[in-house]
Amino acid sequence: MDKKPIGMFDSGVGGLTVYKEVKNKMPNEKIIYLGDTINFPYGSKSKESIIELSKKCVEFLLSKNVKMIIIACGTATSQALEELQKMYDIPIIGIINPTVTYVTERGFKDIGVIATRGTIRSNSWEKKIKEKNPQINVYNQECPLLAPMAEEGWTENQIAELVIKEYLKDFHGKKMDALILGCTHYPLYENIIKQELPNVEIINTGTRIVEFIEKSDFFEKQTLNEVEKDEIYLTDTECNFLNVAKNILKQDVEIRSINKN
Amino acid sequence: MDKKPIGMFDSGVGGLTVYKEVKNKMPNEKIIYLGDTINFPYGSKSKESIIELSKKCVEFLLSKNVKMIIIACGTATSQALEELQKMYDIPIIGIINPTVTYVTERGFKDIGVIATRGTIRSNSWEKKIKEKNPQINVYNQECPLLAPMAEEGWTENQIAELVIKEYLKDFHGKKMDALILGCTHYPLYENIIKQELPNVEIINTGTRIVEFIEKSDFFEKQTLNEVEKDEIYLTDTECNFLNVAKNILKQDVEIRSINKN
Repeated sequence: MDKKPIGMFDSGVGGLTVYKEVKNKMPNEKIIYLGDTINFPYGSKSKESIIELSKKCVEFLLSKNVKMIIIACGTATSQALEELQKMYDIPIIGIINPTVTYVTERGFKDIGVIATRGTIRSNSWEKKIKEKNPQINVYNQECPLLAPMAEEGWTENQIAELVIKEYLKDFHGKKMDALILGCTHYPLYENIIKQELPNVEIINTGTRIVEFIEKSDFFEKQTLNEVEKDEIYLTDTECNFLNVAKNILKQDVEIRSINKN
Repeated sequence: MDKKPIGMFDSGVGGLTVYKEVKNKMPNEKIIYLGDTINFPYGSKSKESIIELSKKCVEFLLSKNVKMIIIACGTATSQALEELQKMYDIPIIGIINPTVTYVTERGFKDIGVIATRGTIRSNSWEKKIKEKNPQINVYNQECPLLAPMAEEGWTENQIAELVIKEYLKDFHGKKMDALILGCTHYPLYENIIKQELPNVEIINTGTRIVEFIEKSDFFEKQTLNEVEKDEIYLTDTECNFLNVAKNILKQDVEIRSINKN
């Protein structure tokens, strides 16, 4: 049993969708969450910038003595996971591999992926899926406005509905078994996406991460009854984080500010 | 008469709204335009990053032997103009001062400003306006989605209408003489904004820049009849630039790619 906390980071509030899944399944774990809000959005930044920013997030979490790090951000996973894994000894997991394992084991043949521009252009999802099964068809769609809209808190209004309709329009008429939400902000739009694609399994990467961690050999579950309070840090607190966080977690959250560029 | 071209840069396609105004009034000038599309959007980046990126844009334009530089970007003007002016001998003008001169000379008392998050948080518009006339009321509104939406080409659809309605809702009921479009992408929404605020003068910073240049003592007008073709460079050509540019300029444009981070 390892008493140290789990570290987690995202460019903003989206990673809380992963936090929520982890917390639900592993209520005894203490989580340290870092939202790099001053550098939001990652989705339109270069690979080099994202590696640099992700390193700073990892260093911050290491200073909090975490036992493992979850990159709760699709863009940082696609652009920086492999580099970070080479640089640090601590287990670092991203959102892609656990989900790829799931979709290939389920035997899906036609898979859609929606994500930020950076993630789609890196082609990370398609490459990883085809490494496991080259027969799978992958349909990619970049959705540059979805993460910024989620940070604004616009996830259940008419604007969100129209924007999602627009981004998903090319999927209509395609045979598709599953749609991967390749950015951790996107589960906030899950209801609207389900309405648009009612016969497609919508895949929340947070759920897949929890499954993966539970099965992994590096993870020692915390079994204490008295769990310390989680800590949520932001690099910039002037944002809608609190409101969106409350909407995701259905409870008030307390945030701490750190000076970080 | 100075035969050298005018240099101009923006994070993306928005600066073409300034280009268009300059071209209309000064058809004999050759313009070199740089869209730093690989680093779009500037609006959510730190001041330090924006200064760094703007320096690279200036260096590129200087390598093209320009006689002056127009920062055709609201965020870069608000965050980097003064630093760039200290660093370089060539005349560099931004979108703020010419517009501030205009609104204060017109005797406006109540002025709205819409811009990116970075620009609004820098408070540059309000500071400059109040330096000239502390009696003027300034109403600020950050609109983080408008520039990204313009880059997507969504400027005249229902989504654009709803997003603008949402951002402008706090202006209703306020006495307001003018609304400054504090980001060069925003003139693309001019029709919708006019519908929303029919009794307010909507201020396109490009128009004000041309007036300012024409009156300035550093500017020598080109009077040649045979004008060389303008050159438009992008740091990343994988974007909607061509479509949006065609919509702004009502003609096809040819773009050149440069490798630049």
